[in-house]
Amino acid sequence: MPRKRKASSITESPSSSTMYAQDNATKSAFEPYPPSKVYRLIEPGPVLLVSTGSLAESTHNLMTIGFHMMLQHDSPPLINACIGPWNTSFEALKKSGECVLAIPDARIAQKVVDIGNCDSDEVDKWEAFGMDALPAAVVKAPLVSAGDEGIIANVECVVVDRSMVKKYGMWVLKAVKAWVSPGFRESGRTLHHRGDGTFSVDGEVLDLKERMIKWKEFQD
Amino acid sequence: MPRKRKASSITESPSSSTMYAQDNATKSAFEPYPPSKVYRLIEPGPVLLVSTGSLAESTHNLMTIGFHMMLQHDSPPLINACIGPWNTSFEALKKSGECVLAIPDARIAQKVVDIGNCDSDEVDKWEAFGMDALPAAVVKAPLVSAGDEGIIANVECVVVDRSMVKKYGMWVLKAVKAWVSPGFRESGRTLHHRGDGTFSVDGEVLDLKERMIKWKEFQD
Repeated sequence: MPRKRKASSITESPSSSTMYAQDNATKSAFEPYPPSKVYRLIEPGPVLLVSTGSLAESTHNLMTIGFHMMLQHDSPPLINACIGPWNTSFEALKKSGECVLAIPDARIAQKVVDIGNCDSDEVDKWEAFGMDALPAAVVKAPLVSAGDEGIIANVECVVVDRSMVKKYGMWVLKAVKAWVSPGFRESGRTLHHRGDGTFSVDGEVLDLKERMIKWKEFQD
Repeated sequence: MPRKRKASSITESPSSSTMYAQDNATKSAFEPYPPSKVYRLIEPGPVLLVSTGSLAESTHNLMTIGFHMMLQHDSPPLINACIGPWNTSFEALKKSGECVLAIPDARIAQKVVDIGNCDSDEVDKWEAFGMDALPAAVVKAPLVSAGDEGIIANVECVVVDRSMVKKYGMWVLKAVKAWVSPGFRESGRTLHHRGDGTFSVDGEVLDLKERMIKWKEFQD
């Protein structure tokens, strides 16, 4: 389990009365984004950071993953993520059933790799890598921030199906709230892990919307 | 179900005696690649083509997907793929329990989109889009080829877990044989669907192997 750390000044126990204030605080870095469009963030296959634990109780942890997918566009939006008992975050996810998936920008590639290559039993990853934990609106785990445009988006998730956890370490998550960095589509470039420690960064963007005659409902 | 089509001259009923010949024929376009390293192909999150049905029986079909993930590196290598009853390929996959996942290069982006936007009940996709079906080594569904460097890799798969098919249309596949285009790491650029008909193409590659101190076994 991650060590407890000193709570930051923005950390308060979540309650319905603080929700609105938290929304405003979060807005300084991120803008709300419809959970029904989270597939636009996850389907491209970016490397993700996963925040678990509780910000209020200062037990929040951070890890890096590349094994995840969109499972369902909407009603509700579902995401699969592989987080096994070999990960320190596993116990926190098991206990709380909540997490935040953050999409890092290629600008912080080295931090993303380093976060995945040390252990929260030994290192306070938030402090060591200068990552900010911001209160989420719905879940106890914090949103992830890394200064200006270091994080493209945050997706607050709750676990809705544990039937593949024991066998594969795979969780089915429902996106319940999402946040994006302003202008993320123009400026954000995600990282794609090629499995061996090398990463491709988003290059050219092709607009082939005109040819997508079957799936118009996903372009609105 | 896809319409039956005229079998090509390389199409023969698979049997153990033809395996070696098939391996050789396939080698003209692709080189064998260890299934234990298939994570290097799938983890980056490229758009995939899926070939189902039987080449020998000329019932082979083709579709495009973006909802998939690596589930397990090895022992065995496992991949999740979302192919639901709303897809024509669903019935073929249900019947045979086999498919081929092909990774298209960005050069054929328009074809990849068009293949996903028509229906095999009405169109012979292989013929309409000039895609070649090559005999696989292990499964009945064909490898996918699209001329010079149009396809980066082919992964022959068998279904190993159907427990999430009914609820989510999600199949757990085991990679049993894999093939890559020669020099795929140097020349291949994959497509990543941003969910709305736009695609990011691989750009710059970052080599951060030095920082990957925890997962050295995946770099060999």
